[in-house]
Amino acid sequence: MPNIENLCVNTIRTLTADAIQKAKSGHPGMAIGSAPLGYALFNKMRINPKNPDWQGRDRFVLSAGHASMLLYSLLHMNGYDLSLEDIKNFRQLDSRTPGHPEIEMTPGVDASTGPLGQGFAMAVGMAMAQAHEAAIFNRDGFPVADNYTYVLMGDGCMMEGAASEAASLAGALRLNKLIAIYDSNRITIEGNTDITFTEDVKKRFEAYGFGVFDVADGEDIQAISRAIDDAKADTERPSLIIVHTHIAHGTQKADTPSAHGEPLGDECIAQMKKDMGWEYDPFTVPSEVYAHYEKMQEVRTAQNDAYDSMMKEYEKAYPELYARLMAWHEGVSEAQIEKMYALFDNVPDAPKATRAISGDILNKLYNECGIDNLFGGSADLGPSNKTIIKPAEFFACGAYDKQNIHFGVRELAMAAACNGIMLYGGMYAYCATFMVFADYLKPALRLSALMGLPVMYVLTHDSFCVGEDGPTHHPIEQLASLRATPNVAVFRPADYKETVAAYISAVTSDKPTVIALSRQNLPQYDCTGRDALCGAYIVRDTEKTPDGIIIATGSELEISLEAANMLSEQGVNVRVVSMPCMEIFEEQSDEYREAVLPHAVKVRVAVEAGSSMPWYKYVGKCGTMVTIDHFGVSAPAKVLAPEFGFTANEVVNAYMEAAKHH
Amino acid sequence: MPNIENLCVNTIRTLTADAIQKAKSGHPGMAIGSAPLGYALFNKMRINPKNPDWQGRDRFVLSAGHASMLLYSLLHMNGYDLSLEDIKNFRQLDSRTPGHPEIEMTPGVDASTGPLGQGFAMAVGMAMAQAHEAAIFNRDGFPVADNYTYVLMGDGCMMEGAASEAASLAGALRLNKLIAIYDSNRITIEGNTDITFTEDVKKRFEAYGFGVFDVADGEDIQAISRAIDDAKADTERPSLIIVHTHIAHGTQKADTPSAHGEPLGDECIAQMKKDMGWEYDPFTVPSEVYAHYEKMQEVRTAQNDAYDSMMKEYEKAYPELYARLMAWHEGVSEAQIEKMYALFDNVPDAPKATRAISGDILNKLYNECGIDNLFGGSADLGPSNKTIIKPAEFFACGAYDKQNIHFGVRELAMAAACNGIMLYGGMYAYCATFMVFADYLKPALRLSALMGLPVMYVLTHDSFCVGEDGPTHHPIEQLASLRATPNVAVFRPADYKETVAAYISAVTSDKPTVIALSRQNLPQYDCTGRDALCGAYIVRDTEKTPDGIIIATGSELEISLEAANMLSEQGVNVRVVSMPCMEIFEEQSDEYREAVLPHAVKVRVAVEAGSSMPWYKYVGKCGTMVTIDHFGVSAPAKVLAPEFGFTANEVVNAYMEAAKHH
Repeated sequence: MPNIENLCVNTIRTLTADAIQKAKSGHPGMAIGSAPLGYALFNKMRINPKNPDWQGRDRFVLSAGHASMLLYSLLHMNGYDLSLEDIKNFRQLDSRTPGHPEIEMTPGVDASTGPLGQGFAMAVGMAMAQAHEAAIFNRDGFPVADNYTYVLMGDGCMMEGAASEAASLAGALRLNKLIAIYDSNRITIEGNTDITFTEDVKKRFEAYGFGVFDVADGEDIQAISRAIDDAKADTERPSLIIVHTHIAHGTQKADTPSAHGEPLGDECIAQMKKDMGWEYDPFTVPSEVYAHYEKMQEVRTAQNDAYDSMMKEYEKAYPELYARLMAWHEGVSEAQIEKMYALFDNVPDAPKATRAISGDILNKLYNECGIDNLFGGSADLGPSNKTIIKPAEFFACGAYDKQNIHFGVRELAMAAACNGIMLYGGMYAYCATFMVFADYLKPALRLSALMGLPVMYVLTHDSFCVGEDGPTHHPIEQLASLRATPNVAVFRPADYKETVAAYISAVTSDKPTVIALSRQNLPQYDCTGRDALCGAYIVRDTEKTPDGIIIATGSELEISLEAANMLSEQGVNVRVVSMPCMEIFEEQSDEYREAVLPHAVKVRVAVEAGSSMPWYKYVGKCGTMVTIDHFGVSAPAKVLAPEFGFTANEVVNAYMEAAKHH
Repeated sequence: MPNIENLCVNTIRTLTADAIQKAKSGHPGMAIGSAPLGYALFNKMRINPKNPDWQGRDRFVLSAGHASMLLYSLLHMNGYDLSLEDIKNFRQLDSRTPGHPEIEMTPGVDASTGPLGQGFAMAVGMAMAQAHEAAIFNRDGFPVADNYTYVLMGDGCMMEGAASEAASLAGALRLNKLIAIYDSNRITIEGNTDITFTEDVKKRFEAYGFGVFDVADGEDIQAISRAIDDAKADTERPSLIIVHTHIAHGTQKADTPSAHGEPLGDECIAQMKKDMGWEYDPFTVPSEVYAHYEKMQEVRTAQNDAYDSMMKEYEKAYPELYARLMAWHEGVSEAQIEKMYALFDNVPDAPKATRAISGDILNKLYNECGIDNLFGGSADLGPSNKTIIKPAEFFACGAYDKQNIHFGVRELAMAAACNGIMLYGGMYAYCATFMVFADYLKPALRLSALMGLPVMYVLTHDSFCVGEDGPTHHPIEQLASLRATPNVAVFRPADYKETVAAYISAVTSDKPTVIALSRQNLPQYDCTGRDALCGAYIVRDTEKTPDGIIIATGSELEISLEAANMLSEQGVNVRVVSMPCMEIFEEQSDEYREAVLPHAVKVRVAVEAGSSMPWYKYVGKCGTMVTIDHFGVSAPAKVLAPEFGFTANEVVNAYMEAAKHH
């Protein structure tokens, strides 16, 4: 049966087998098993391979990122800028075909995937973004945002908690343009899914509020296509299409775990090709396949052109909306930045928790600075994280235009959904929880960093000053863990002005920003200011070269300044440096950094209510620190501060200790 | 209706309200709403308040840890060693009544909880441990291990991915002695659950394979009791009892989010007490209540005595089994430790990946050293993590006696379940995944650390040498993050002997141990040895005082030794220190640490394929490092090592750079 469909499917299968064999590394099983599914899906998708970033395109997330050769084969065949040469370089340095899909490496890849479960949660975020944009911008006859978001999941994705959280969220939000496809091959690395995954996935997803469709034979392209049509026709809720496939279908390793993550071997590949009547050389795409997709390209180009024409009409019909939409997609403007800088001057006249300040600023960004493409919320801690933007209306079915999101108690899906929102484009996503629960969302924050997505992580209750809730709620190592993560900026502002700086930095950044905020009230300082944007700066200096330097962040600036004054009374001249963001300080010039922290000044003390680990870099082996390397205990914060040594007196003692070494 | 049941329930409610009001901090809503449920459940439980650690007791996990006053009220009333004075000290420093339950603080608390979802997953682990122990030790007429595990969850727990993963696992394993109770009050911090949690929980849990029971009225103690009986009668599968309650029932704040996490206020409490006809002073437990529980204590004492008698008979009938059971609960013996030390001598005669070595050692611990209470597995990466203990048989319904666990692709539930296994007692739990996915399980590892549970975390593929799988699979910051976590020992062994040391340390520890293992082959060194148990030690020294020191871990010891030899040829005398475990090195005497890393030797280089952050402590500001602070890329490991600067030449260059500063 050498029809074109079979030819395309077999091309995917042979390219997959050949590339993985050549690389001596990769995951052939699912890519081969889901080849018909991938073929059928890409035919259904509204995409333009010649314009891969077309905003109106359907999105596709390969949540089972290890099946990357399925995606690369499809991208090549469909006509994306991904050559056979690229495919021959699968998994090699600097190739466009890395082991797992990465957005910046390959045109047509909509999300970097690999860590299971998260791709699905990102797709949920994309569908949220589409619904939000549609509700605000679509008008009769002008479907500005009406794309579908497709996501392909495997058994592994189905088992991950991230996917469960995201599915529950998607069901509650009734994201009807989300279509998840579950490649159910029932084989994982340790064996058949019977060994540990016996649940009724259909029933589970129905319980979440999904429409669930079943395709009994994963080789049946027509049935898969019909299921996609059925899913689209279900306009009330998100859809899951369960496609029953066989891992490494058509090979001797079919239905075995060994097909999952290692090359099939020459013999197995030869057998597969023989059985399918494939007589081409390795890495061959038959000319009929190219011709097939070239024809399809005409339709796709026409679709893209029609969308562009529609947008031209939209510009005429709704010039203001159009301008607003363009502004969303262009990112923050100079005018907006200017308005943000103006916020520096509105210092409150009383002590205030930086979480409350953060809430005020978020509201001002949205309501006063014109950054009305903020879209985010908290994992059920909005009133506590102070992340609700007024008017306090929430994104929901029937209210998709609203900017606040109820993420529910689902930290990991929340952060992954924020990645999806940013990937969709046009919005600034933010999410929030207590800082100690950054642990729950870390896998998604890591993907924000890897993809360079400026998601804002609003993490309140940033130290043991949480108090009574006790050690499970006291962050200790979280600052260290977040700072150790590449490509993340971690801000821990001390007061209002530094919080403004954190937000300006976050909104103008090309990477995620963590903003660590206090539960408790903090004073407003005269000595702080815009230099916080440099990451670290002098907030108290001495006339002569300082005898020593105290470096502090956030809530600990207060006792540090107090300690400096106490030392001054003893004739010791101490500079105080506020360091709200180490990563941004490290980006400053050598001159600036030397000016703030001169090498010659050896006596140094770091003060922060978190792990000592990040601070050795700045105080050296001989410096001392007022930090905390043990778990907290349940008690009022005011009792804990002296208990844990966070007093001006203790900072003075630490300084004296450091001075002894020099 | 002043019957005893009402009196008890009202005692819980008033103690809760009073304690939280006095502390000016706490979560009254759920504790008040689920008071009848808690009352009914504790009456059903096989416990002995006078012997809280009785191994035969039913377990209770308050997964919704914020409802701690429910538990403390019940513990006090039931006669545990928790006084009214303790309850008056709710949330105060050093009290037995911390904000969230902590095992080491309060008799009768079976698990430290607070981070949502994890309590349920720990309960699943406890039920797994019970099933395992029962399958091995129970005999006709001798139900050595036949307790139930009860867990109380709220809406928040239900939304967390950890709970979804654990429920799917429990269903697959058919853990019929697990009875979860869902306090469905439909109120979370941001509002009614309608806003984001609309799923059909009953259907979802049926999909997992749970028997689900419904109690329409959470005030109906008889109905709750009957549901517990029904759940017990369902001997084929785990149970979920959905109890429909009202947060802060009987107060003016009933059914409102404000009842969740703040004191009710004097007025609201007065109204509640008035409405229930409560005329006692604050913090009063009526004498009828005490009398009620004193009577119950007689039954409980008799139950405990009967169990003890049964065990005495068991000892006679099955002396070998009894001895083995006792050995399990006593922990590793001197004889076992001796056998483990003997492993040091069986060095393989060829290079080998430390993950493979780890697999060999795990098998030897189980099969040769007599540590047959190892119980663990991997999150579907067993063949890759090398964690399968022979005979390669797996824990499952009908095979609960088997020692290997298929955790499925559920890292967080896996680690939390291991906590549950350790809390149950008598076993050593281990779990495994790729090191980069330590991020997924970190919230549970943190609880291992907080509770001091020596769970073993076998994390393989411990650097960018994973290679082709790319940046989503390359750990970078994970070592820093794990080391920053209090009360965790992080081992990164360089070869066979150091891996033996890691396991000896892990099995004899009172805290969790992470064992970071290589994917790739590593050489066996003559210079390594038992001193690895000191955390760091000299593996290459110089005749005179060294000019400098190179400190390395794991796979980087090889290039470090090579670099030292190259430097030696240039007349530079370099000591090499292998530092498999920083935390244990820090526990050594000042003298030992000074001998290994003399202060006088300032020229220092650290070499590790991970973040630089942990190393400033040892090399100081002026030292240099061969570390990696950026994400990896997809390419063969052999290509990446020089690309990322991990060669002996680069270590030499780093040394020269460090030497320049001195």
